[in-house]
Amino acid sequence: MIRVTVWNEGRHEQTDPRVSAVYPQGIQGAIAAGLGSGPGLQVRTATQDDPEHGLSEADLAATDVLVLWSHIAQHEFSDEVAERVYQRVLGGMGFIALHSGCLSKVFRRLMGTTCMMRWREAEEKTRLWVVAPGHAIATGLPGHFELAMEEMYGEHFDLPAPDELVFISWFQGGDVCRSGCCYYRGAGRVFYFQPGHETYPTYHDPVVHQVLRNAVRWAAPVGGPQIMRENVPPLEPLPGRE
Amino acid sequence: MIRVTVWNEGRHEQTDPRVSAVYPQGIQGAIAAGLGSGPGLQVRTATQDDPEHGLSEADLAATDVLVLWSHIAQHEFSDEVAERVYQRVLGGMGFIALHSGCLSKVFRRLMGTTCMMRWREAEEKTRLWVVAPGHAIATGLPGHFELAMEEMYGEHFDLPAPDELVFISWFQGGDVCRSGCCYYRGAGRVFYFQPGHETYPTYHDPVVHQVLRNAVRWAAPVGGPQIMRENVPPLEPLPGRE
Amino acid sequence: MIRVTVWNEGRHEQTDPRVSAVYPQGIQGAIAAGLGSGPGLQVRTATQDDPEHGLSEADLAATDVLVLWSHIAQHEFSDEVAERVYQRVLGGMGFIALHSGCLSKVFRRLMGTTCMMRWREAEEKTRLWVVAPGHAIATGLPGHFELAMEEMYGEHFDLPAPDELVFISWFQGGDVCRSGCCYYRGAGRVFYFQPGHETYPTYHDPVVHQVLRNAVRWAAPVGGPQIMRENVPPLEPLPGRE
Amino acid sequence: MIRVTVWNEGRHEQTDPRVSAVYPQGIQGAIAAGLGSGPGLQVRTATQDDPEHGLSEADLAATDVLVLWSHIAQHEFSDEVAERVYQRVLGGMGFIALHSGCLSKVFRRLMGTTCMMRWREAEEKTRLWVVAPGHAIATGLPGHFELAMEEMYGEHFDLPAPDELVFISWFQGGDVCRSGCCYYRGAGRVFYFQPGHETYPTYHDPVVHQVLRNAVRWAAPVGGPQIMRENVPPLEPLPGRE
Repeated sequence: MIRVTVWNEGRHEQTDPRVSAVYPQGIQGAIAAGLGSGPGLQVRTATQDDPEHGLSEADLAATDVLVLWSHIAQHEFSDEVAERVYQRVLGGMGFIALHSGCLSKVFRRLMGTTCMMRWREAEEKTRLWVVAPGHAIATGLPGHFELAMEEMYGEHFDLPAPDELVFISWFQGGDVCRSGCCYYRGAGRVFYFQPGHETYPTYHDPVVHQVLRNAVRWAAPVGGPQIMRENVPPLEPLPGRE
Repeated sequence: MIRVTVWNEGRHEQTDPRVSAVYPQGIQGAIAAGLGSGPGLQVRTATQDDPEHGLSEADLAATDVLVLWSHIAQHEFSDEVAERVYQRVLGGMGFIALHSGCLSKVFRRLMGTTCMMRWREAEEKTRLWVVAPGHAIATGLPGHFELAMEEMYGEHFDLPAPDELVFISWFQGGDVCRSGCCYYRGAGRVFYFQPGHETYPTYHDPVVHQVLRNAVRWAAPVGGPQIMRENVPPLEPLPGRE
Repeated sequence: MIRVTVWNEGRHEQTDPRVSAVYPQGIQGAIAAGLGSGPGLQVRTATQDDPEHGLSEADLAATDVLVLWSHIAQHEFSDEVAERVYQRVLGGMGFIALHSGCLSKVFRRLMGTTCMMRWREAEEKTRLWVVAPGHAIATGLPGHFELAMEEMYGEHFDLPAPDELVFISWFQGGDVCRSGCCYYRGAGRVFYFQPGHETYPTYHDPVVHQVLRNAVRWAAPVGGPQIMRENVPPLEPLPGRE
Repeated sequence: MIRVTVWNEGRHEQTDPRVSAVYPQGIQGAIAAGLGSGPGLQVRTATQDDPEHGLSEADLAATDVLVLWSHIAQHEFSDEVAERVYQRVLGGMGFIALHSGCLSKVFRRLMGTTCMMRWREAEEKTRLWVVAPGHAIATGLPGHFELAMEEMYGEHFDLPAPDELVFISWFQGGDVCRSGCCYYRGAGRVFYFQPGHETYPTYHDPVVHQVLRNAVRWAAPVGGPQIMRENVPPLEPLPGRE
């Protein structure tokens, strides 16, 4: 059983009728519906305006994979909660940052770079190409798929070179983007997925749903070793010591 | 259900009583027993002296992950069968090469390098360190584990830089080795695991069994896109063409 | 001083007037002119129809970086010479494969994959994006640059994930390509650069010249350690041995 | 000309006579002497107790590569200066962190992980193995080299998987370490080198000097593209827009 928290900043939906028209249950609702309640998944949602942003110690202790969308209120996100989420990722929790969530406090800290990019909001078509057909996040996908309208995020996108690059996006306006990027940090796994502008129906797309289901399974904790990083005695005798 | 073929050259066991004493069921038998018949695994064994090396078209069509140990008869391995296995890996079959299997025809072809290394047979202790605690192959492992006697394979080991490095080995005689290396080739996944000299009981070790079970699950086909690499028409209209 | 051999198959120029019109000195001539005789570079050219393909033992011994373009006569390339070039790359010689040179015997052997791709010949525009602005091959380049007409090579392109990805190409017809890929093999460095169809003036482009100059410098041998991969005694005393 | 600033915290030398005995000119002095004033290098030194830590805007503007050693006073390092150095690395300045400098504010921020490790101070022997013989940092090195006494830093060392792994260390007490790690961040290059405990003469070792000279050359800015990450118009006409 993988316990997923789908987290959405949730501000656009409150103030912009275009967004609430596309996402009447919030972006989190569309993503949760897309993940479904298939075998082995247990999904809850949370938003920034929940107490402790819906990311209390107890919430995180009960989360295997955190899916995060954020945009306009990132500066209002609590430093304390950001630190808590960050530590939990290093401890093994999966973390999936969506679209402008690349600029969230947690993602930027995990990356070590600005995570800024060229961008353009022009309702243009994008086409995502699978460049790692053997990757778990490519399961059940076609070799490429389109989204009719997306915000362009393009290169150079200030991310570290991904440990595994799964998607590259083509944009109608002439740009490209490393749009599906996997990273390992501490014991945790991080996936960044570029599409998902708030006024476009990206999170209702069935292929995007498949990507997110795959990503959740990929990012789930593996149950690896408990690591002690501390002062340790030698494991082998050192000559000349008594 | 993951269908595994555990393949062993199987020559040492016929001629060297030290080997048959350690591996009375052959190296393949010890590995198959170690993989077990746990949920989701179906294991068969094959050896070089089987018809078509036990790797006929039908055998490969029924294999999701091939685990291979080889050493002294690699030059007698059929080029035709090697080509068949190679193509099947590119098509998505998992491939796990063990110890001297790094010098097998299929592994060398997949790597593009000589796969030669410094080596020493001195019954020395080795200790494997997990350097990727979030990797699927680290599931259920301690942070490090020891094998009392191993053949040393050391650096520079002429492998490409692995796509994911899981283990580094310490050797008593003063060497180190990148001893658990993951690669993606075509739609297939390849794992190399360094321990496993024929006169040592490596493949009876329960931690090694865990590594191999993990590796089989990691290497299993993901069901990614069917890729057509061919002459294709444009997906977008090209200005000025009719 | 970096000694460069610019190698061209040289067959199109003999039979196709469109090619000889674009490359009256052969593709090799255009590339050699583009590399120039700047400080520290010494450039010679060779073609497939030269004795031993212009790649004799002596030729290779005097070559630090080999730049290779090939297309229609790859099956006529000598296996013996391919083996010689391959071994020399593992020994440290830089190797730059251009465009359809990805299907040359040497490049395919170094990669371990088929190196096949989606493709289309439609005189379409391509735009290359630098995705690694700190890479040596990005020296002096703009963030992106265009070529007015190119053959499309697109994803999934069956190459291993590059050790360093420098360029991603956008194509007018809707495809993308990992078009500048660095690999380390043995002691040698390998760079693949996708543009360069024989009927388009790619190798007269000054930005492409800059890319190739950068690539030659990047690929030049570094003078690293002489590696002995052989049976070696322990470097540390092994307890209990005399 | 590469302008290098060798920066040392410089506190141990003031308070621990063992350190000042080994490094009478400070660790910075030994490193600067080791880099030498060879062709193309211009070296200055600075310490934490200099005004603005010797890392003013003007200092950084005149620095191509910053070499940093720090240990006990990292918490006293100015957040403002750390931010300045960090931004300058993303802008292209090379950054080489030595030994306990992995726990400096700047390095941890660039990595996105804790950068903590297993450790032991037992005057034990270490042996560094070159695992990337074609890497620029391996220039002129032997395949392996020893340091008679070092502090052990071992795995799992909480660093991201390096973009290029150059050295793996063997320790007498039974541990291993990814001890030479390259990263790209923004337009900048980062190298981490593990040896260098303050009471051992590591920075007087001629092979270590060669490593540091190589690393400085590798990390120097390449003069890549000036990147604008901002709102941009389309490069191609978008159908249906006027």
